[in-house]
Amino acid sequence: MSVIADTPAPPYYAVIFTSTRTEGDRAYVETSARMIELAEQHDGYLGIESAREELGITVSYWKDLTSIKAWKANAEHIEAQKNGRSVWYDTFKIRIAKVERDYGV
Amino acid sequence: MSVIADTPAPPYYAVIFTSTRTEGDRAYVETSARMIELAEQHDGYLGIESAREELGITVSYWKDLTSIKAWKANAEHIEAQKNGRSVWYDTFKIRIAKVERDYGV
Repeated sequence: MSVIADTPAPPYYAVIFTSTRTEGDRAYVETSARMIELAEQHDGYLGIESAREELGITVSYWKDLTSIKAWKANAEHIEAQKNGRSVWYDTFKIRIAKVERDYGV
Repeated sequence: MSVIADTPAPPYYAVIFTSTRTEGDRAYVETSARMIELAEQHDGYLGIESAREELGITVSYWKDLTSIKAWKANAEHIEAQKNGRSVWYDTFKIRIAKVERDYGV
């Protein structure tokens, strides 16, 4: 998570997950690591980038909407999503976006 | 920058800017704040979210590609982009993405 994701040429998809945390870990760090491990095994996963200060931003990259949908429906991920809503996150927003162009050094 | 951006209903655009910094401030913090101030004055600006650990992620939201193009061409912003490449950033990637769907609490 500490490097820029090595994504292929566009088009591909980004899931922009922005959140503010509640107090206390309550297995958050462990579950976050597990979710990345799980996501990496999913078809269509292209990479992930993450940073948190007051606001947390995690952007995961996917081949298409089908692969995002399959990841969202993963049973262990569904459990984590429930805990996200009820335990870990004070507020959050998820944006599904189609990357049309990219550049950089 | 410490809260989730209050964006309108999709579609709209996201500019996902991911970077790793070089050492030393060299007017980086001051320029970053000025760029947000400038961006906010631009037509089509919808909001910004930012966090940095080892990796920095800034996502700015825009009405359409035209407004992103106009912001990229802002004279003061062009100067900052030059310093970004030559002074502040070790590596960076910019992704232009169309937000198709969003949800959250």
